[in-house]
Amino acid sequence: MREITGQALERVLGHEFADHALLRTALTHRSHGVPNNERLEFIGDALLNCVIALELYERFNDLSEGDLSRLRSHLVCQESLHQLALKLDLSAALRLGEGELKSGGHRRPSILADALEALFAAIYLDAGFAKLREAIVAVYGDTLSQAQPGEILKDAKTRLQETLQASRLPLPRYTLLSAQGAAHEQRFRVACEVESLGLTTEGEGSSRRAAEQVAAEEAVRALAEREAGRKR
Amino acid sequence: MREITGQALERVLGHEFADHALLRTALTHRSHGVPNNERLEFIGDALLNCVIALELYERFNDLSEGDLSRLRSHLVCQESLHQLALKLDLSAALRLGEGELKSGGHRRPSILADALEALFAAIYLDAGFAKLREAIVAVYGDTLSQAQPGEILKDAKTRLQETLQASRLPLPRYTLLSAQGAAHEQRFRVACEVESLGLTTEGEGSSRRAAEQVAAEEAVRALAEREAGRKR
Repeated sequence: MREITGQALERVLGHEFADHALLRTALTHRSHGVPNNERLEFIGDALLNCVIALELYERFNDLSEGDLSRLRSHLVCQESLHQLALKLDLSAALRLGEGELKSGGHRRPSILADALEALFAAIYLDAGFAKLREAIVAVYGDTLSQAQPGEILKDAKTRLQETLQASRLPLPRYTLLSAQGAAHEQRFRVACEVESLGLTTEGEGSSRRAAEQVAAEEAVRALAEREAGRKR
Repeated sequence: MREITGQALERVLGHEFADHALLRTALTHRSHGVPNNERLEFIGDALLNCVIALELYERFNDLSEGDLSRLRSHLVCQESLHQLALKLDLSAALRLGEGELKSGGHRRPSILADALEALFAAIYLDAGFAKLREAIVAVYGDTLSQAQPGEILKDAKTRLQETLQASRLPLPRYTLLSAQGAAHEQRFRVACEVESLGLTTEGEGSSRRAAEQVAAEEAVRALAEREAGRKR
């Protein structure tokens, strides 16, 4: 592991560890024993969310906090972290227990994503916040600098409609379930029904349109999960 | 506002702003116009979660990442932030639109909590991460240094039991719904039924006990929400 560590990892990260024990812990899955990367992952997740929030805040002056939040979710989700971990060849550096290793744990997206977060924590503890921020920007590279909010943030109703049309299915139906509260703080509940797929989701928001977007987002998510389930 | 800013706030925060426009924006609710604190709140939330994570990580060597996470949730929840905002007398410094002001917006917990997060963001932008960390530790004061994980993390089944006993209600019933997967990665699903209150929740975990805790946590949360609904 030291080989890979010294070469690929530290090079891509742009950081040579002063304390190699930290690096080793970050790459150690709990199946391997103690110390492992579980506690590091806790702070790594917080640090990563924070750095990406700051980067997006500075890069996109005109985005609302809602859009910033959605954009960040897209960049720090397990799938994004998994892709970055593959790019870093993290799986070759992971330390796993024997059972986990045999069952292919070094290729499991959740294990790789967690290890990457732990690695970010290790960089922070080794060299501080500014250095970590540089490393995260380096690891994300194009993913961050070419982030296209327009595409990622395309509204959920549009994405749901496009998904259904791609399968030549009828459009979803939105129904207002309730509207409550005084004028300036009304809450709307809306159902989104995709009858052809036997799927109904609900959404809540401060306007009917906002509630529809939330319901559509849930539907998109549910369809993506079904799709993922089919592929496994 | 400048008065309060210069005196109470900056003193308690231990930070004198170089850029007072940042401070003003942090204290401006969207009802007052633009610029307001919505985008600042986005990064403030991330920064606060990150700083509290780091503080807990360093203070509690023996806590698992699950307990660290629960402890942090307790410290950064709206109610905790609201209490800190009251301590700082933030409501006197808030800038609100007229309608919001008349309807008591300067006392609304969510508005105060959001403004406090925005204030943390402003400190970061004004003076950097290390200074923000000092300020957060100063604002939290005893809340952080006297955090009693034992009490806060008292397991959910115990808390549910105590809540029900306080109302002289019968104990909940836990039922195993399913157990799936190979030996080293089994998943258990458990239902927690509080028959006297017509409440059933579910939980999932890697052991039956863990799943029961999750289901009990859901039940505690549902009961707290019912209670809050009754008081509104």
